Amino acid sequence: MTAFPEIERIPFEGPQSKNPLAFRYYDADEKVEGKTMRDHLRFSVVYWHTFRGQGSDPFGPGTAVRPWDDGSESVENAQNRARVAFEFFEKLGNPFYAFHDRDVAPEGASLAESNKNLDAVAKVLKEEQQRTGIQLLWGTANLFSNPRYMHGAATSPNSDAFAYAAAQVKKALEVTLELAGGGYTFWGGREGYQNLWNTNMGRELDHLAQFLHMAVDYAKEIGFTGQFYIEPKPKEPTKHQYDSDTSACLNFLRQYDLIDHLKLNLETNHATLAGHTMQHEMDLAGASGALGSIDANTGDMLLGWDTDQFPTDIYLTTQCMHTLLKYGGFTTGGVNFDAKVRRESFEPIDLFYAHIGGMDAFARGLKIAAAIRSDGRLEGLLKERYASWDTGLGAEIEAGKHNFASLEKIMLDKGEISANRSGRQEMIENLINTYL
Amino acid sequence: MTAFPEIERIPFEGPQSKNPLAFRYYDADEKVEGKTMRDHLRFSVVYWHTFRGQGSDPFGPGTAVRPWDDGSESVENAQNRARVAFEFFEKLGNPFYAFHDRDVAPEGASLAESNKNLDAVAKVLKEEQQRTGIQLLWGTANLFSNPRYMHGAATSPNSDAFAYAAAQVKKALEVTLELAGGGYTFWGGREGYQNLWNTNMGRELDHLAQFLHMAVDYAKEIGFTGQFYIEPKPKEPTKHQYDSDTSACLNFLRQYDLIDHLKLNLETNHATLAGHTMQHEMDLAGASGALGSIDANTGDMLLGWDTDQFPTDIYLTTQCMHTLLKYGGFTTGGVNFDAKVRRESFEPIDLFYAHIGGMDAFARGLKIAAAIRSDGRLEGLLKERYASWDTGLGAEIEAGKHNFASLEKIMLDKGEISANRSGRQEMIENLINTYL
Amino acid sequence: MTAFPEIERIPFEGPQSKNPLAFRYYDADEKVEGKTMRDHLRFSVVYWHTFRGQGSDPFGPGTAVRPWDDGSESVENAQNRARVAFEFFEKLGNPFYAFHDRDVAPEGASLAESNKNLDAVAKVLKEEQQRTGIQLLWGTANLFSNPRYMHGAATSPNSDAFAYAAAQVKKALEVTLELAGGGYTFWGGREGYQNLWNTNMGRELDHLAQFLHMAVDYAKEIGFTGQFYIEPKPKEPTKHQYDSDTSACLNFLRQYDLIDHLKLNLETNHATLAGHTMQHEMDLAGASGALGSIDANTGDMLLGWDTDQFPTDIYLTTQCMHTLLKYGGFTTGGVNFDAKVRRESFEPIDLFYAHIGGMDAFARGLKIAAAIRSDGRLEGLLKERYASWDTGLGAEIEAGKHNFASLEKIMLDKGEISANRSGRQEMIENLINTYL
Amino acid sequence: MTAFPEIERIPFEGPQSKNPLAFRYYDADEKVEGKTMRDHLRFSVVYWHTFRGQGSDPFGPGTAVRPWDDGSESVENAQNRARVAFEFFEKLGNPFYAFHDRDVAPEGASLAESNKNLDAVAKVLKEEQQRTGIQLLWGTANLFSNPRYMHGAATSPNSDAFAYAAAQVKKALEVTLELAGGGYTFWGGREGYQNLWNTNMGRELDHLAQFLHMAVDYAKEIGFTGQFYIEPKPKEPTKHQYDSDTSACLNFLRQYDLIDHLKLNLETNHATLAGHTMQHEMDLAGASGALGSIDANTGDMLLGWDTDQFPTDIYLTTQCMHTLLKYGGFTTGGVNFDAKVRRESFEPIDLFYAHIGGMDAFARGLKIAAAIRSDGRLEGLLKERYASWDTGLGAEIEAGKHNFASLEKIMLDKGEISANRSGRQEMIENLINTYL
Repeated sequence: MTAFPEIERIPFEGPQSKNPLAFRYYDADEKVEGKTMRDHLRFSVVYWHTFRGQGSDPFGPGTAVRPWDDGSESVENAQNRARVAFEFFEKLGNPFYAFHDRDVAPEGASLAESNKNLDAVAKVLKEEQQRTGIQLLWGTANLFSNPRYMHGAATSPNSDAFAYAAAQVKKALEVTLELAGGGYTFWGGREGYQNLWNTNMGRELDHLAQFLHMAVDYAKEIGFTGQFYIEPKPKEPTKHQYDSDTSACLNFLRQYDLIDHLKLNLETNHATLAGHTMQHEMDLAGASGALGSIDANTGDMLLGWDTDQFPTDIYLTTQCMHTLLKYGGFTTGGVNFDAKVRRESFEPIDLFYAHIGGMDAFARGLKIAAAIRSDGRLEGLLKERYASWDTGLGAEIEAGKHNFASLEKIMLDKGEISANRSGRQEMIENLINTYL
Repeated sequence: MTAFPEIERIPFEGPQSKNPLAFRYYDADEKVEGKTMRDHLRFSVVYWHTFRGQGSDPFGPGTAVRPWDDGSESVENAQNRARVAFEFFEKLGNPFYAFHDRDVAPEGASLAESNKNLDAVAKVLKEEQQRTGIQLLWGTANLFSNPRYMHGAATSPNSDAFAYAAAQVKKALEVTLELAGGGYTFWGGREGYQNLWNTNMGRELDHLAQFLHMAVDYAKEIGFTGQFYIEPKPKEPTKHQYDSDTSACLNFLRQYDLIDHLKLNLETNHATLAGHTMQHEMDLAGASGALGSIDANTGDMLLGWDTDQFPTDIYLTTQCMHTLLKYGGFTTGGVNFDAKVRRESFEPIDLFYAHIGGMDAFARGLKIAAAIRSDGRLEGLLKERYASWDTGLGAEIEAGKHNFASLEKIMLDKGEISANRSGRQEMIENLINTYL
Repeated sequence: MTAFPEIERIPFEGPQSKNPLAFRYYDADEKVEGKTMRDHLRFSVVYWHTFRGQGSDPFGPGTAVRPWDDGSESVENAQNRARVAFEFFEKLGNPFYAFHDRDVAPEGASLAESNKNLDAVAKVLKEEQQRTGIQLLWGTANLFSNPRYMHGAATSPNSDAFAYAAAQVKKALEVTLELAGGGYTFWGGREGYQNLWNTNMGRELDHLAQFLHMAVDYAKEIGFTGQFYIEPKPKEPTKHQYDSDTSACLNFLRQYDLIDHLKLNLETNHATLAGHTMQHEMDLAGASGALGSIDANTGDMLLGWDTDQFPTDIYLTTQCMHTLLKYGGFTTGGVNFDAKVRRESFEPIDLFYAHIGGMDAFARGLKIAAAIRSDGRLEGLLKERYASWDTGLGAEIEAGKHNFASLEKIMLDKGEISANRSGRQEMIENLINTYL
Repeated sequence: MTAFPEIERIPFEGPQSKNPLAFRYYDADEKVEGKTMRDHLRFSVVYWHTFRGQGSDPFGPGTAVRPWDDGSESVENAQNRARVAFEFFEKLGNPFYAFHDRDVAPEGASLAESNKNLDAVAKVLKEEQQRTGIQLLWGTANLFSNPRYMHGAATSPNSDAFAYAAAQVKKALEVTLELAGGGYTFWGGREGYQNLWNTNMGRELDHLAQFLHMAVDYAKEIGFTGQFYIEPKPKEPTKHQYDSDTSACLNFLRQYDLIDHLKLNLETNHATLAGHTMQHEMDLAGASGALGSIDANTGDMLLGWDTDQFPTDIYLTTQCMHTLLKYGGFTTGGVNFDAKVRRESFEPIDLFYAHIGGMDAFARGLKIAAAIRSDGRLEGLLKERYASWDTGLGAEIEAGKHNFASLEKIMLDKGEISANRSGRQEMIENLINTYL
């Protein structure tokens, strides 16, 4: 029996093909800069959107047709769904996946029962991982859906919510360890506020830091050595989350002495909602040694919420892969498709169309980025642009040999600066187009 | 001779008045929470908009009628303008003002001449300060207008621009010290990028940090003990400034070990362009001990650039003053009107209308904030909201007595959390309205 | 038995009160400009948010505690809910309410059954209307939630969806007539597109116009003389609705010869999502004789979706009421609270806090607007501003006595225009504050 | 003597080239869908940005190096600049250009002198047009820069401003006719408001309509048969222009009986500032028979003002050209580069880089759009999607054979609609990528 009878393994067809159900650029074994595309891209499928999303929106219920799912909250249905998920992964060819605790297993009537349910499904996940070789990119706990977390989890004014969240993350870490997950992600959906008038921001931030320290301690205790990630997002579901962008996360991590323990899991749609490009967020994180993993999707720049669309813009994927290569590529992270099919794309085959489109766009972006680097012209322009810092006065300044007085003296003598050069933005934009 | 014949000192008239050329709420000597309004609000007028702004915009040249200004770039005109400025300050009653080096004195043909021009005008400023008792809130250098800074000053790819900026800030610090300025502000208008493809962000950030360390060192050398400020702004004139919001500034200051040397100068219009309320930025800075001063203005929430309008929304001024009082009020900073009259408000008297409206709105916000605090109901709601953290489990967690395992045990026993309370947002919004 | 034991009828306490569970400004019988506040404001409560909203959001299920609701989709539960709604209306004191067909009665297994269910509940609504004197402001049909409308209703590429929607609106019109509703509203939630590549916009617009003409014809046929409204909204749930703002609606109505049959139902949050102030949308509609009714709420200007918050900003309510008075006030429409309590405000009493806050803010806005009009200073400024059009050249132009040649002659002679006057924006903003 | 010694005519090199100073896709004589690229694209260079833009922004003066310009406002300099402009056009190969009256000739001390100056330069323009065969795409008058227009031109509260603007447009029409311009564009930069409190919107709209009718009448009088265009823009320089987007323009034109006289000149950056894609604006205008010409540029989707960047995104250019081909291509209009080089791209050669990048991106977009159309798969999907409207019930409805009662009867019988099909958005996005 198969859940996806119409699809066998997705073929690689090559660039001339116009078949949207085949890869044109992604060939897992092809090498780029000496490494396979599989290892560069480390594609991951998310359980929440792809196996739990129903296509509901604030104006209507779900539309998705998922014949394998009986719609119940039983453990059996959850286990069966897990097997279907792995069938999907196999056919698609993604080496990784990611989940929240409550995605894979139903919440029970008590914490104990929820834990038991999670174990029951984790058993199937482990079997499927072993059967297929597909790995868990990272695990996480859903600390935002249940009404108990309406005011936050670690930052709730209700200390019980903190305690419950602690118990939930403890279990999620154990399951992630059991499944040999490569990381664990914190996304603080409700860690923020709706209204500052009723909020004690400083105290809530202290609690959040305390919570993360407990997680770090517990990971050490149980021997979980995966990478911790924190995921920035500016708004939704609260008016303002505390981890709103890369800078907010890094500032928080530095302030509370957590900077050595967490890296960033960056998402395109979150970046743009925060007013930044994904390229900016990745570059800033990279420059701080904190670029961990990416949630690959895209928003609609004219809509103000997290549309989580599949990424197909090759400018975007080129920027992502160019920045990633610049900082050495992924170690623990991957290209994780935190993206969902549109409500109107309700058939199972749309899940394939969507992932193939995204994977191919990233593979193409990788090849373009590698071509840019190999060609060397862009890097040459950059080298030339900063040349004044490599010798003479610039080099002396970088070496710490100057202060305001010495620089004033030089400029009083010189009178005016050496001529600036054109920034050549239009030329560079045209140049980038030549690699597409 | 007077530049403003139509205005004598602005009268205080009290709340029943409908005269927009008189104060209805701002009475400098009236005490609020045991301190005069003068000392709470520390109003400051900015030289750049009020005495150099001409009302130009990207679609048309200036419109402003300024009879005292001969339009020339002569030192004499600059000195005369300075005297007119002080006449304006006296009539308005602001105890502080602020300027950039190039606002008050014309740039000369060489750095040496520019410095000489600045000294010549600073002499007049000093005389006027002594004559009137009006003080310099903070000084700063314009490192963004001159084409030499087109690619940045401290972050320019041209190391000469760094050196020239160093010389310029050195001089501006000396003049600020000479005028007994209470602080010095860094706003990095061009310290950012237009395009990441031609930018080395990490190297530029290193240079910016080095520049600020030089400033700190030089202040120490010359005995300048005023407060250094950094002013966040997200976009304009570059696509992205490095100091884009409070978090970005704090992260940068922590990363480069500058956190003890600079506080934040926060501006409403910059906050909203970055996607935050001013209340958020002030609260976040306050919670980090970095709330220094505020640039009081407002943007148009439906326009995407820095309109720098005068603040007249009493919800906004109430939020500002309530947050400020919560963190103990200003020490070195003030309410600095970084705001400009509209291009169509081109008469000198519009400068009075504008400042009076803004000052009165802030005075009213101060009185409302004090009433909220004195009444105690809002604070009571907040106290009650976080009560679970003051005793029992919450208090134990804050005291560091728990970890994931102990909390899991408690929650496995308890099964579910104690009931959450309503956040009461609508009630609070209505309550705030009762103080207006 | 009572659903709201803690609340009797909401008292009027007057402006000194700080009780958020009492009116301070809204006294239904008080006269303003010769008419009672009840008749000016015509407050209406919406069934969908207040009696069907559960507080779910895209990141979590509902939180609302509604003890009277058994959670089932039975007709009995729906009838009971209707009685509770009227108890709420009575205690609150709103003279009107509004609903969608599927809010009040459950959708059945077939269209016939859905119609039967609607009749069964409409019977109770009619009884309650007669018992209380509370009236239906307008009715409408939900043509956006059911998956059958995923691609639109009147604009669906599936003609069956058009037909089904026609049947549904037919029934909704009949029920609205039976309940003596004062109007009927079209809001085209899914009448738009997600993606232009798969959309035939021109053909869809033709269908939409045809649908509205059918509605107009059917109303005539059954003797429904209530006002038809169309409600602009720019985005959500589709990427782009066709009726995105006032201009888009008016253009469509003019293009398809519907302009005499529909007025606008304007919503604040929709206005701002479209990039306009509510004041703009109301003024534009008013100037076209198309200002019908308003959906009173507010958005969060820093969030990009329809938050539908209760309106408490008295600048907003002043602008709304001032514009409304300018165009003669409501005839058929009203102040309809298309607003929902926050997910964290989950108790029944929060529904009272929310509506009282909104009603009081509008009552206050009405009184301020009336004060501005009575005082006459603002109108005086406006009169003076346009004075050049009331006599001389301006009057001649308006009278059609000039053309380009005659005007060129005048200006060649005159050389330059008579001096402009200051726009006095800052003065006016300060002046408005004096009425608050 | 040549102003651009470094550039001879720009070579066509073809798709393998990585030279940003050559065309890779734009070959004027190459035929696409049976017409040359020259005739499809009708490229036009704008005088204002390319020959008058200096690179100033609100935070700094100009940076541009333009060796041929002596910086004076003399007629001689203006005439010389015109000759340089034509040298640029010749080397670049654009068949059209566009200008405002005040771009090409300096404003004089009186209207008469301004007219004389304009004639003197128009003489040179005419000579150059005849020498080179380059044509005027459209002319226009600058009714927004001079302070006389601070409150608007046709919509000014000062009737003299209306009269002066009338005189100015009269002359601009005469010059456009003299230069055989193919059209005339109205862009109402200051036809809007900063503040609704001091604005009579209805009266101002009446004046604007009257003004346009005078223009239509005068064109008829002098025999100007070029196309009139109106150009939507939502904000900047006023808070809100009246012609804010396609819908606002069409509504206005219909309301005032101008719809047969003007088409739209659509600009990408204006579209996105108004919350629409350019594809939307073009499709909507096209569906109304009002698609006239396009101002080709792009904004930065994360910045909120008119950055007027050169368009290089091939998704954008593909959408533009696909929509244009769908509506039959240009008749009078063209691809007019209303775009400016960045302030940091200050050298003359940057003007070439910028235009070549934009032209090549549009040529590429044209070829991709033609490939999509030729391949037929996308059109096939669309045909299939709306198939239910081509026969049976859908065809009957379109033919006017149904009403609410007949449709209800059908649906009561049928019970539920025929199944919807997936919208296939992800598949289509991937499909589009296969043509790139």
